[in-house]
Amino acid sequence: MTDPKRMYRLYQMQESGNCYKVRLLLHQLQIPCECIEVDILSGESRTETFLEKNINGRVPTLQLDEEIYLPESNAILWYLAEDMPLLPRDKLARAKVLQWMFFEQYSHEPFIATSRFWISILQQADKFADQIEAKRSGGEAALAAMNRHLKINDYFVADQYTIADIALYAYTHVAEEGNFELSPYPAITAWLTRVQSQVRHIRLPDAIT
Amino acid sequence: MTDPKRMYRLYQMQESGNCYKVRLLLHQLQIPCECIEVDILSGESRTETFLEKNINGRVPTLQLDEEIYLPESNAILWYLAEDMPLLPRDKLARAKVLQWMFFEQYSHEPFIATSRFWISILQQADKFADQIEAKRSGGEAALAAMNRHLKINDYFVADQYTIADIALYAYTHVAEEGNFELSPYPAITAWLTRVQSQVRHIRLPDAIT
Repeated sequence: MTDPKRMYRLYQMQESGNCYKVRLLLHQLQIPCECIEVDILSGESRTETFLEKNINGRVPTLQLDEEIYLPESNAILWYLAEDMPLLPRDKLARAKVLQWMFFEQYSHEPFIATSRFWISILQQADKFADQIEAKRSGGEAALAAMNRHLKINDYFVADQYTIADIALYAYTHVAEEGNFELSPYPAITAWLTRVQSQVRHIRLPDAIT
Repeated sequence: MTDPKRMYRLYQMQESGNCYKVRLLLHQLQIPCECIEVDILSGESRTETFLEKNINGRVPTLQLDEEIYLPESNAILWYLAEDMPLLPRDKLARAKVLQWMFFEQYSHEPFIATSRFWISILQQADKFADQIEAKRSGGEAALAAMNRHLKINDYFVADQYTIADIALYAYTHVAEEGNFELSPYPAITAWLTRVQSQVRHIRLPDAIT
């Protein structure tokens, strides 16, 4: 923030894993923030007023200053963690953090988060049965890749808890709300416990103010 | 590279826009690279040998050193451009570069690149007609968001050509191969020309060695 008296304002939806990532990091960094709930189901993120904040009409969008907005959950994590221990300083480690964050947005979220949205947010599993089935193999492939990595690594990058773990934790720990069972992936469930044991961990339903 | 005598090795597929991003940046930075073609259509990216390089079984994957591999096109762009003019130094500008790169992988590539893959790489537009139709509105929404931004900006971030432009150029300039017409988006076509006018621009079909 250019003005230290100004508080960050997070345009968000409480149930969204992408928004939870930002709340979790803000809380762990002890950065105060005002959360503004946006009802995406009624189109509030696609109004002309909201498109002025985020041209792509999505949450989370973090307001940094009077007219400065930053969309995209993982770009927000990066911005907030720059120069912090949760983002390593080593050049290769930083690229590996991005590797896993792009994996999360391309190979994980579109399958697991989308299934959870249809099943547990909209509660319309029957209506979206075909689409949910089409998301099955991609979601299992993402979990298998994570499990393989976590069999020989405690965290995703640099043997430490980073924003890559936060990004991947958000929708993985609620994967069962999208009908993805985690019991076949014991390395993932062990990692979930390690993430939950971090200082100032908060749960997805918890709001911050 | 830890060993300056070692040349980067890019595991890639020539027609892929994600791989082209990396070739374009390497060429513009005058970094030599050996390209290794991976036949993803015959499963070469899903062999056990390849999964040792990239646990997610995709190209591009850049080999940095004997046992160090970096997957994910946009993470590779970031790694190569760190400390270079194509990645601004300002913290907010860097986050905005990531914003547009995550937009590219989440809101653009899954619609426009996937349609192009079915229509122009596999040449199976009839077989995938329903899936292509399902990708229509998402692809048009991505192009509309880009066009709106480019009406008032020459480039995506910081009034300069950055790796965000490279990331978005890759599949946008061949969008018509996925049956997305660009004529309704004049700000995009003007930006394509600006990108093509950059020093050491190469075309997608061009190989580098």
